[in-house]
Amino acid sequence: MPSFVQKLADARRKNDSLLCVGLDPDPALMAIRDVSDFNRAIIDATRDLVCAFKPNIAFYEAMGIPGLLALENTLKAVPSHIPVIGDVKRGDIGNTATAYARAMFETWGFDAVTVHPYMGWDSIEPFARAKDKGVFVLCRTSNTGQSDFQGLMIQGEGGASRPLFEEVARRVAEWDKNANLGLVVGATHPDELRRVREICPIQPLLIPGVGAQGGDLVQSVRHGVDKTGGNAIINSSRQVLYASNGKDFAEAARRAAIQARDQMREALASRLA
Amino acid sequence: MPSFVQKLADARRKNDSLLCVGLDPDPALMAIRDVSDFNRAIIDATRDLVCAFKPNIAFYEAMGIPGLLALENTLKAVPSHIPVIGDVKRGDIGNTATAYARAMFETWGFDAVTVHPYMGWDSIEPFARAKDKGVFVLCRTSNTGQSDFQGLMIQGEGGASRPLFEEVARRVAEWDKNANLGLVVGATHPDELRRVREICPIQPLLIPGVGAQGGDLVQSVRHGVDKTGGNAIINSSRQVLYASNGKDFAEAARRAAIQARDQMREALASRLA
Repeated sequence: MPSFVQKLADARRKNDSLLCVGLDPDPALMAIRDVSDFNRAIIDATRDLVCAFKPNIAFYEAMGIPGLLALENTLKAVPSHIPVIGDVKRGDIGNTATAYARAMFETWGFDAVTVHPYMGWDSIEPFARAKDKGVFVLCRTSNTGQSDFQGLMIQGEGGASRPLFEEVARRVAEWDKNANLGLVVGATHPDELRRVREICPIQPLLIPGVGAQGGDLVQSVRHGVDKTGGNAIINSSRQVLYASNGKDFAEAARRAAIQARDQMREALASRLA
Repeated sequence: MPSFVQKLADARRKNDSLLCVGLDPDPALMAIRDVSDFNRAIIDATRDLVCAFKPNIAFYEAMGIPGLLALENTLKAVPSHIPVIGDVKRGDIGNTATAYARAMFETWGFDAVTVHPYMGWDSIEPFARAKDKGVFVLCRTSNTGQSDFQGLMIQGEGGASRPLFEEVARRVAEWDKNANLGLVVGATHPDELRRVREICPIQPLLIPGVGAQGGDLVQSVRHGVDKTGGNAIINSSRQVLYASNGKDFAEAARRAAIQARDQMREALASRLA
């Protein structure tokens, strides 16, 4: 089985795309009612345009057991060569993190997950132990509340200081012995994305926040990719899923995904030029 | 409907107990195989000895849909006057946090939840908006990895500095407009528990880490309770659930719970004396 990083690179090259479509079904916004059918239509309409899919499990959990059954159907609908990032944002003590890792990698079969850094390495290690899986640690998130803690200045050795999110990035670079860690950095903070890319030159970066959240797509590509022009996963959820609330929702999603993919290609070309 | 804080106070007084039993079913340790039956037996054996029950959802998620159905059965088995804290450690951007809050409070019906602070107030507010529910923010956790970030020194105004977990406690005290926020502080750090209690004199503190994790029960009671001798929820999971791996597991759990409750009573009496 290829590692997550390899699978991601293969999917990116095959589809020539940095776009990740977030599968976040919201009953108030979906054009049709059935979550499995909705997601299947979105996946079929965009599967040749993406480097990954990213269901955020909160939207499924909100619907109870039927929602989780819809997640199961959704995962079955993703072609096996496209990696699926479970956006689950978990984080707990060692034996509990081991249970979460089992849930996400064995029960659900995600290729990668997102995790919280606050509880430290022993809350992340049980996920990272799965060498063929990817683990994205929250670093600089795309919401306004990120400023509450992530930007606090940490006292370093010798009087140097740096914001907390940079300390998280530094630790992730240190911890990445299995070459399967990555970081979540919101598209809403391009300068900080650039700084994180400096600290973590080779790790995959998961970049949410373009589209509905107002992040800058072009800057996200420019500052997010590694030296090879890869390892940046630029997520769009609402802009693709809810491009139309009519019967043409899948075609509209495809058009929105093509547009996003092409904008990313152009940004990458202008960066490499 | 009484608020979580009121329901907690009522249960604590009725059972004269600060003990919370963590319902964390581990197939490798359980005396019987069926999770619903196991939990029901534990609940029936300890329901008059606790101020709360606390299922950690990771253990149920690890078993897939059948695990979540067992959680559903478990919640039905808890007497309606005992509050249930869903130890879910969620944290996500606003619209996603709203979906998680719906999952935890409406779909599952937990009286309270645990959440991560890293993403800031707008990731916590959708939970706190439910005024009758409790929201415990992770502050100083009981695992060894807590030292990676929680103890980092933050630069404050005027050259003052404090560890990150104290900053979290300070912010929670500020944000607690609905009087429904609390903090998670591990029993493994009694001095820091005392410091958090100074910063948050009235908020409920959820204190895991006695028993298997080696935290100090007596110090946890002394430093954890508020002025009235309440609002400290001292959790024990493995020490109670796995007191015996034989057919007498429920009786053994009851004996372990009585012992823990009595030690807490004594610690409280010696403090108030």
